[in-house]
Amino acid sequence: LIPIISIVGKTDCGKTTLIEKLVPELVKRGYRVGTIKHDVHGFDIDLPGKDSWRHSQAGATTVIISSPDKLALVKKVAKDHTLDELAASYFSDVDIILTEGYKKEAKPKIEILRSGVSDSLLSSHDELLFIATDRPGNFADSPSYHLDDVSGMADLIEKKFLSEKKPQIQLVIDGQEVSLNEFAQLIITNTTLGMVSSLKGIKQPKEIVLKIHKK
Amino acid sequence: LIPIISIVGKTDCGKTTLIEKLVPELVKRGYRVGTIKHDVHGFDIDLPGKDSWRHSQAGATTVIISSPDKLALVKKVAKDHTLDELAASYFSDVDIILTEGYKKEAKPKIEILRSGVSDSLLSSHDELLFIATDRPGNFADSPSYHLDDVSGMADLIEKKFLSEKKPQIQLVIDGQEVSLNEFAQLIITNTTLGMVSSLKGIKQPKEIVLKIHKK
Repeated sequence: LIPIISIVGKTDCGKTTLIEKLVPELVKRGYRVGTIKHDVHGFDIDLPGKDSWRHSQAGATTVIISSPDKLALVKKVAKDHTLDELAASYFSDVDIILTEGYKKEAKPKIEILRSGVSDSLLSSHDELLFIATDRPGNFADSPSYHLDDVSGMADLIEKKFLSEKKPQIQLVIDGQEVSLNEFAQLIITNTTLGMVSSLKGIKQPKEIVLKIHKK
Repeated sequence: LIPIISIVGKTDCGKTTLIEKLVPELVKRGYRVGTIKHDVHGFDIDLPGKDSWRHSQAGATTVIISSPDKLALVKKVAKDHTLDELAASYFSDVDIILTEGYKKEAKPKIEILRSGVSDSLLSSHDELLFIATDRPGNFADSPSYHLDDVSGMADLIEKKFLSEKKPQIQLVIDGQEVSLNEFAQLIITNTTLGMVSSLKGIKQPKEIVLKIHKK
């Protein structure tokens, strides 16, 4: 399971700015970081007049622009995706995901409290990983860090979420990741490797992606 | 296997315009269409100053903006992806993919020939599905359509690529889709369903996605 941490707080409390500080700190420590921004009002990322916009306007469900160093995708969807759905579909190659928003999902939270902008917590104590604030020290029940103490925050994130090695197997059923105990991981991995190894032309697979749709 | 058709032709021959005509015609006939634009020179889809751009600039490998009706992703990649890789990762929910460019990949081609812009074919006879041109009828070995005959082109695409029902199983190994005969499809589907059904909490899965990484 890829760890997902949500940065929450009131409008203009500095969520994007905190992400801008945490991402390079984690990258510097050797981790691959993904981010998810929640935009409940919709957005406009594709530029009018560009070819990709024209493809999308013509009715394509999914449009990709692919280049040797960057890939962009715009996809029409029928519903707001959950963080687990997004993680399973698009983030197989990162070590950790930071989200901007998503205060209603049950993921560990970093909540920003800033003088004059926010005074009370949005998050419950249970889901609160720590508070990032311009006046730390006043929160007896939860750890708090100064908004500038990026190294301290990254230490805690690293210790809590990045010390264990990455999973070798991921199983997603109807959009939800299924947690597997060690025995189930072993059975499924070995059975799948066994099935696949008997196929013509398959020698030493490094990555196997298997999708099954039932009518 | 999701059918992939590449629209190729010289610069300014009208590739985007043809895609703008074919996509709504196929959508009207009930198909879900995806498109891929090849940009060998890189591109700039994310707007400076927007939050997603700031996440990407901070070093995030993959950035997503998610809203209830649209999802956008910008991902840094280490190499140009093949069409099969893109299809396997991002297009599981479409019936057909049209690409703009990708003349070097071995996919069926629609080649545009336009007076004054292009006179000779880029595609080999083997991979040429048909020619779309402003002067049809002069090509003895390959079918040709007038650039405005969207209905005729869609008829051929539908007949050749969309009449068979969609596959129920997709297996991708190290980025390449593996074709499975009926027996292998049956064995892998049933074995996987059997493994999964014994897991706690799993009742009647509609979609199963299994990813295995070998160290």
